[in-house]
Amino acid sequence: MREGLKIFKIGGGIIDDDAQLQQFLTELARISGPKILVHGGGKGASQMLQSLGIEPQMVQGRRITDAATLDIVTMFYAGKTNKQVVALLQAAGVNALGLSGADGNAIRAVKRPVKDIDYGFVGDLPEGSINTALLGQLLQAGITPVFCAITHNGLGQLLNTNADTIASTLARALAAEYEVELHFCFEKDGVLSDINDEQSVIPQIVPAQYQQLKAQGVIAAGMVPKLDNAFAALEAGVERVVIENALKINEPVKTVLCRS
Amino acid sequence: MREGLKIFKIGGGIIDDDAQLQQFLTELARISGPKILVHGGGKGASQMLQSLGIEPQMVQGRRITDAATLDIVTMFYAGKTNKQVVALLQAAGVNALGLSGADGNAIRAVKRPVKDIDYGFVGDLPEGSINTALLGQLLQAGITPVFCAITHNGLGQLLNTNADTIASTLARALAAEYEVELHFCFEKDGVLSDINDEQSVIPQIVPAQYQQLKAQGVIAAGMVPKLDNAFAALEAGVERVVIENALKINEPVKTVLCRS
Repeated sequence: MREGLKIFKIGGGIIDDDAQLQQFLTELARISGPKILVHGGGKGASQMLQSLGIEPQMVQGRRITDAATLDIVTMFYAGKTNKQVVALLQAAGVNALGLSGADGNAIRAVKRPVKDIDYGFVGDLPEGSINTALLGQLLQAGITPVFCAITHNGLGQLLNTNADTIASTLARALAAEYEVELHFCFEKDGVLSDINDEQSVIPQIVPAQYQQLKAQGVIAAGMVPKLDNAFAALEAGVERVVIENALKINEPVKTVLCRS
Repeated sequence: MREGLKIFKIGGGIIDDDAQLQQFLTELARISGPKILVHGGGKGASQMLQSLGIEPQMVQGRRITDAATLDIVTMFYAGKTNKQVVALLQAAGVNALGLSGADGNAIRAVKRPVKDIDYGFVGDLPEGSINTALLGQLLQAGITPVFCAITHNGLGQLLNTNADTIASTLARALAAEYEVELHFCFEKDGVLSDINDEQSVIPQIVPAQYQQLKAQGVIAAGMVPKLDNAFAALEAGVERVVIENALKINEPVKTVLCRS
């Protein structure tokens, strides 16, 4: 039997709120067994870019990571946020170790090819991006890897990679060796059947149901890419995907996505 | 016989010069066997503090690390510089992994007690600060740990620690298990017998000689604390301390300090 592994992804909102971040990390410390945390960015980087007079580069509504922006996001994601999270987890008794994709060649990305838009220093994760041997060694040693959303291309270039993508790529790559549960933590209690009713959490969704809910328009537009991504992870061997409130990971309320 | 381990420390000057940093890292990649790199800060953090209108806090000529300064140095040291160095080493074929003291609880510091001066968030390293088990595991796995000068206190607080202190404390702690060579790399070729003659490198110094050179005033004032620290490391079991030019680590010119 494969050992269990829980991968948690938290977004920028919780990073920006010290009290909420502390609460999430305290709850995370109560989760036993091997685990990995992936964290998003938060508003700090944008605010600093503004303070320094660096205007966000947007093309067709999409943010471009130019060299100055990459420098600042690396400082925030891999520096301030990652080290703060690691120090707080250490204080909570979790042997956390912060990683970018460059560290130990943990995640090797490919700079996004320029088609209509040049996204700049953005990294995509092809098959084989994840150094599963390194992660196995760290987990074996009782370490909780904490990933920020910075990767590298193996040629000395750091890249900015979406944190959701990192979490699901880790989950897929590690599914061969572990029974992986992928947790997307956000500010709602789960997937809602009525966007205006916070109580309407759908406890469980299997693929056939998901297709129905999508067809009926029950699942709101913003959730569709997240859930498409989640079901793709299930198809690729991930055992379970959980959509839940970052402040309630130890409470029963949540949406569990599973293959059947 | 204990296995050899080389610990290299580079300062801020080389961090600020992309070409020199690349040259040093290329030379470092040619050094075989287990190794650790410790890097200092560079001017980036001070420049950013200035750009953001944060005035350096000085008391009696000593820099104070207040909360805002700690945030910025963490971003630069643990974020930008550490990840850049790691990505460049990975490109050079070295399996580097960046660490602050918080990561894997690698270095646990104690906030400097307030006596005459409150230095703020500065961490000193008492006996037992180094997680030698973690470092042993990483080195065993063929990984080159790359330390920035940020530590933690185990209670969730990050601290700013002198990079020379980190390097010599690592060397002393690992001397029980490894035959440690500690390399302080800087912009000169070694310890000079004539401060005005760059060619006057003293090839080797043993403790008795050092006392003489100090008494004669041959060794310049600025070098004294560095060398006192180096000879203390030798007394504590470090095999050899090397003072050398960061750009010439594979050349014979250098000063080697040894016990006899």
